[in-house]
Amino acid sequence: MIVMLTTASIIMNSPYTGMISGKFGGTPGAMHKHPNIKLKRTSSWGLQFKAPTKVNATKVGAMDWSMVDPEKEVPNMVSDLGVERMIQDGLIFQEKFCIRIYEVGPDQKASVETLMNHLLETSINHMKKTGFIHEGLGSEEMSKYNLTWVVAKIQMVVDRYPKWGDIVEIDNWKAALGKNGVCCNLTFRDCKTGQILVRASSFWVIMNKKTRKLSRFPNEVRAKLEKFFVDKPPLVEQATRTWSRSEDNITEHICKGLKPRWSDLDINQHVNHVKYVGLILESVPKTIIEKYEIDSMTLDYYQEFTNDNILQSFTYILTNDNAKISNCDFVDCQHLLQFEIDGGNSNIMKGMTRWRLKHGKNKGI
Amino acid sequence: MIVMLTTASIIMNSPYTGMISGKFGGTPGAMHKHPNIKLKRTSSWGLQFKAPTKVNATKVGAMDWSMVDPEKEVPNMVSDLGVERMIQDGLIFQEKFCIRIYEVGPDQKASVETLMNHLLETSINHMKKTGFIHEGLGSEEMSKYNLTWVVAKIQMVVDRYPKWGDIVEIDNWKAALGKNGVCCNLTFRDCKTGQILVRASSFWVIMNKKTRKLSRFPNEVRAKLEKFFVDKPPLVEQATRTWSRSEDNITEHICKGLKPRWSDLDINQHVNHVKYVGLILESVPKTIIEKYEIDSMTLDYYQEFTNDNILQSFTYILTNDNAKISNCDFVDCQHLLQFEIDGGNSNIMKGMTRWRLKHGKNKGI
Repeated sequence: MIVMLTTASIIMNSPYTGMISGKFGGTPGAMHKHPNIKLKRTSSWGLQFKAPTKVNATKVGAMDWSMVDPEKEVPNMVSDLGVERMIQDGLIFQEKFCIRIYEVGPDQKASVETLMNHLLETSINHMKKTGFIHEGLGSEEMSKYNLTWVVAKIQMVVDRYPKWGDIVEIDNWKAALGKNGVCCNLTFRDCKTGQILVRASSFWVIMNKKTRKLSRFPNEVRAKLEKFFVDKPPLVEQATRTWSRSEDNITEHICKGLKPRWSDLDINQHVNHVKYVGLILESVPKTIIEKYEIDSMTLDYYQEFTNDNILQSFTYILTNDNAKISNCDFVDCQHLLQFEIDGGNSNIMKGMTRWRLKHGKNKGI
Repeated sequence: MIVMLTTASIIMNSPYTGMISGKFGGTPGAMHKHPNIKLKRTSSWGLQFKAPTKVNATKVGAMDWSMVDPEKEVPNMVSDLGVERMIQDGLIFQEKFCIRIYEVGPDQKASVETLMNHLLETSINHMKKTGFIHEGLGSEEMSKYNLTWVVAKIQMVVDRYPKWGDIVEIDNWKAALGKNGVCCNLTFRDCKTGQILVRASSFWVIMNKKTRKLSRFPNEVRAKLEKFFVDKPPLVEQATRTWSRSEDNITEHICKGLKPRWSDLDINQHVNHVKYVGLILESVPKTIIEKYEIDSMTLDYYQEFTNDNILQSFTYILTNDNAKISNCDFVDCQHLLQFEIDGGNSNIMKGMTRWRLKHGKNKGI
């Protein structure tokens, strides 16, 4: 059975919750500046990290290809199109995308879902390139133990949304995250101007495909992975504020009866983690969707679901003026996705977003 | 205001309905073989058609570039990635795609929506290449009259669905369709084997962006278009059977309360025509979705809608054995998408699909 690599099929009250520092801490509003909150990077992997020098010090094909078995059938890959390469002694994987017409929203800008799709695509192509895709979405060693990758958390900061027709270059590198996690870091750069558009860190852990529980890393998986790790902290650091419904000046918006569609399902026959965002947005008030765009966000994934489930989506807006959404430069929101039938005790995802005015003085113009 | 090129914002009881032969005719089941039903191609355009010889007779850059004004800012284009080219004296536009992880469904195959997205993307890139994209999604001449393209109909036959990682080459050529329509024809070919995977014809007409009514072609638009037309009938011909709810042996399946999402909206701030398919599939029984895949389909678009609307989706299964879905090789369905609030008198889309067993003896293996 092939299981989706980065879908959110994690029950976070597992032994691994602590490892990825799943809680927010700090003060409201601090998320935008992404201050230096230390995300614990333990050295207990016992890995020999390599520190990259500069991303633009191009060195194609310098990675250790010994782990790619030429005997195995390698599928047609995006590399055949000449839009990807390895640089930095094989530590950084680079890929170019053109933003397509169907990837943009009403404002001709790439949607957040589009950015997350490319994050997923590039991270997986990196795995392919390093011989880490064997059957479905895991390495040969992982297949032996019936393991697969799942995404536990995504942190993203968008300086500027690419537009329809823009060509974007993504750099992707991976680092150890605690004892049993991998941090995928990505930058999206405008090929025309060289400007960094998006920075993202997504935290991946390993799940047993049969039990649906998280798993520790088998030694051989660690050994294979460590060669590709960079000794760097997550590019986007932990948000500082705490997710809470008990704060003052908070307004609740709810959208009930959300039904996932057949087209939301991925390889693992459950709803793809990128689709969670679309469901979260359903409870965001129209005023915010139309006037603002996401500046930064943190998403914590707790559970998987399928199109048999009915969900409810909550957005809690943190306001400073008696619960009115005015023309603030920024609006901070909290989000919650739950099953509708169980009395609201079963969380699927929690999120925090900061929104900026679309046509304001901010960087999102 | 910029309006989406290929969204389905057409009220078909307009003077143009007749031109695109909007009705099915013939016997049930004939759709699969796509017999030679004549779709009226009038010669009233008065155009000098060019007949292509062979698609693989590569001749890059031979098109008439005189209509592309170098003074205008040309956006970053997919051509910069080296994955597209013009062949056949500029009459055929070719583009390569890699099927991405987020474009496949549970069976690792590209979804129907993915195929339609690529159809849209390639058709528009062809327009860009020929200088037919000026502001938003129309030529300079069209902008002058406040006109834009919209899709009225799609006919598609899928011989084999490409899989995750496959590289697909799309050939796209355009032909006149009646007096005021354009037929975009596309083939999807597996780059590895050369096998034709998908054939599609989509019918585009012109709409006034303010009145939302269909429009005749201004002479200067005709003059510009005619240089790119190929004298060929639609690649996928009209289905023969008639859409009808009054047939014997028909079972109705309905899904009510369908709410489009924010992420379904496109440049024109209404639901993109590709998303209609996802909504139609919601009323298809699980047995069919899981055991079968779409072999061929015809979609007729009648109206636009936004995420403020609530819809209902109907699927009518044509059966030969007292309304039971058994392990037939093929299942024929009819589909209807309507607004939920108006008593079911306002149709948004009608469709017909033929499904084949996923793992049967058929070509869809």
